[in-house]
Amino acid sequence: MIAEKMKGMVANSSAIRAMFEEGNRLAKLYGAENVYDFSLGNPNVAAPQAVKDAIVELVTGSDPVILHGYTNSNSGYEDVRQIVAESLNKRFQTSFSSENIVMSVGAAGGLNVILKTLINPGDEVIVFAPYFGEYRSYTSNYDGVLVEISPNTVDFQPKLDEFEAKITPKTKAVIINTPNNPTGVVYSEETIKKITAILEAKQREYKTDIYLISDEPYRELAYDGVKVPWLTKYYDNTIVGYSYSKSLSLPGERIGYLVIPDEVADSGDVKAAANVATRILGFVNAPTLQQKVVAKCINEKTDISFYDRNKETLYNGLIDCGFECIKPQGAFYLFVKSPVENEKEFCEAAKKYNILMVPGSSFACPGYVRLAYCVSYETIVNALPKFKKVAELYFSCTGR
Amino acid sequence: MIAEKMKGMVANSSAIRAMFEEGNRLAKLYGAENVYDFSLGNPNVAAPQAVKDAIVELVTGSDPVILHGYTNSNSGYEDVRQIVAESLNKRFQTSFSSENIVMSVGAAGGLNVILKTLINPGDEVIVFAPYFGEYRSYTSNYDGVLVEISPNTVDFQPKLDEFEAKITPKTKAVIINTPNNPTGVVYSEETIKKITAILEAKQREYKTDIYLISDEPYRELAYDGVKVPWLTKYYDNTIVGYSYSKSLSLPGERIGYLVIPDEVADSGDVKAAANVATRILGFVNAPTLQQKVVAKCINEKTDISFYDRNKETLYNGLIDCGFECIKPQGAFYLFVKSPVENEKEFCEAAKKYNILMVPGSSFACPGYVRLAYCVSYETIVNALPKFKKVAELYFSCTGR
Repeated sequence: MIAEKMKGMVANSSAIRAMFEEGNRLAKLYGAENVYDFSLGNPNVAAPQAVKDAIVELVTGSDPVILHGYTNSNSGYEDVRQIVAESLNKRFQTSFSSENIVMSVGAAGGLNVILKTLINPGDEVIVFAPYFGEYRSYTSNYDGVLVEISPNTVDFQPKLDEFEAKITPKTKAVIINTPNNPTGVVYSEETIKKITAILEAKQREYKTDIYLISDEPYRELAYDGVKVPWLTKYYDNTIVGYSYSKSLSLPGERIGYLVIPDEVADSGDVKAAANVATRILGFVNAPTLQQKVVAKCINEKTDISFYDRNKETLYNGLIDCGFECIKPQGAFYLFVKSPVENEKEFCEAAKKYNILMVPGSSFACPGYVRLAYCVSYETIVNALPKFKKVAELYFSCTGR
Repeated sequence: MIAEKMKGMVANSSAIRAMFEEGNRLAKLYGAENVYDFSLGNPNVAAPQAVKDAIVELVTGSDPVILHGYTNSNSGYEDVRQIVAESLNKRFQTSFSSENIVMSVGAAGGLNVILKTLINPGDEVIVFAPYFGEYRSYTSNYDGVLVEISPNTVDFQPKLDEFEAKITPKTKAVIINTPNNPTGVVYSEETIKKITAILEAKQREYKTDIYLISDEPYRELAYDGVKVPWLTKYYDNTIVGYSYSKSLSLPGERIGYLVIPDEVADSGDVKAAANVATRILGFVNAPTLQQKVVAKCINEKTDISFYDRNKETLYNGLIDCGFECIKPQGAFYLFVKSPVENEKEFCEAAKKYNILMVPGSSFACPGYVRLAYCVSYETIVNALPKFKKVAELYFSCTGR
């Protein structure tokens, strides 16, 4: 008796649930410390001390009627939005004000708000494989049609010829995600310039507006000084979705924001509609205490060196075992080539050694697996000998 | 370029925005203490001290990786859900477990989750006027068809003949809200028994399942010892949506829950789909810190005597002025009959005395206005002489 649309999703979600329960089962059987769960993007780094201090200061020092009350605007506290805008201006030489910011229930909430705002049934939304599988659900929520660009497994930069060919008069939005989940790749400035040039040309050709939605939960997680381009500078119709889930290790608190620049086509309507969409989708407003917390912690960052060490150790260890993997420049994922065509077989083989990974087909890129290395360093160190044993099933291991 | 569906909603929301800005304008002109804003359901009672204590204790005493992390299930922390279930069991002699509870981003989030779970395009959702206007948006989000039962302005209990006549084979859900926004009326046990008897008969007649969705943000706000029936005991296909926005004065924090009993048709699917809907609508999980807070404060309540005093003073004052109004048994609203047919004229007249009220047409009940009395007692005391002056425009005031 549930809605038709939900039936397939429930079936699919059972698979994720099954993996989670398998992890629990293994932990009970062998002890949690002997299970190497690389399946979840749940940060293992604690939120900065400043977050704790901010929460205590806010609840002991402010009027609870204001602190826990509805915000005047569904888009959030005006002072918080202004602080976010000014922080972006300082970092990226932009000129946003509070009017350009909509505080959101994480990036997931923000993406739903902007898709609700923009998408008519049948509108096409382009994504580059491999991509975060939720984009499919979010687009489906508003009866949009997801159009996939097939993966470029050489360097996981997007396939631009295919992109250009698949833009139609019905293309309403393109979602990009850099640093990327699941590959860890950062799209280069060259890639961004080419993507936006294609979009500009297609807008002119079709006399349409195509919104570039930049999903940026991993913006602050970039390594080795790599530069993550700020997209509103390259293309007027850019909307940014941000989350503090990773940058402040607050994924459960559901706090992020949308940036809707004045340069966006019909900016006034888009901002007004995003405000309304925040309300009617049931978010009402982003959680108020956390809005104030992120404003107080606007210059705080997570401990990137923790992830960097994990990345180096896991990457080098896997390469030494003979696995193939592109070296990530950002996020906290490794996207490893499966030594057998069907990567689910590889996942099953690894599971025998208590290693949990996500098949690439969940990201529209079969033949690969995703490892989330936002785990303890010990998990990585202890997992490597197990990976070595898995590798021996497929090829001889060179050792280290 | 925004979605067609959003266009009308943006226009409508501008009206609400305009009222809010009018309030700000008046406050600047005359001072905030001389503006009598009865337009918003934003509690003026502070959250209990226990909420503050719980937050400080949680952030200083728990592992932030867990406290602020994703919950294992999108439905929320299992221990929190179990505490909620046991509290309900104790209060209402039910036998729920954590499996029956889905923590939600307020009642608004919960209602969206359950409608997403249940509604196919074209399915009918019945509401009793006057009703919270957002039900229309929430139903529209999933392409459901809202079916209104016209208001019974005698006592604002639902019109049961019309209800029975308007149930069709396409009726998928009925939303009820008691204590009611905007009337403050509590549906009597007799009303509930009649509603559920009608539903049982129609389910048999059409061989369908009709879900009764009980939206209960005002459950704890009942006066004079009036009993608010617990609906799962009257009808198997009942789903409850609850919020802590009013009961703990946490509206900005977005925390509530759904109860999906085992007795509901296809209960397993409904629970699984609600879990998935929580994820794909972008809520992901209810804010984690606040989940833990409400679990710690499970036996806390807001200061109902504050609202009670406001209600008595405002109600008696208005009646003395000659206004007509049903005496509310719950929530924090008065639904006052407009002395002129077009209640918007009445709102405009009151605005000249710096009184802000919401027209009943926003609740599908023109000819009435809603006053939210979750304001300071002083606001009410100071507003009464102004109401007297407004009353003098329409009828002679008996004074007090």
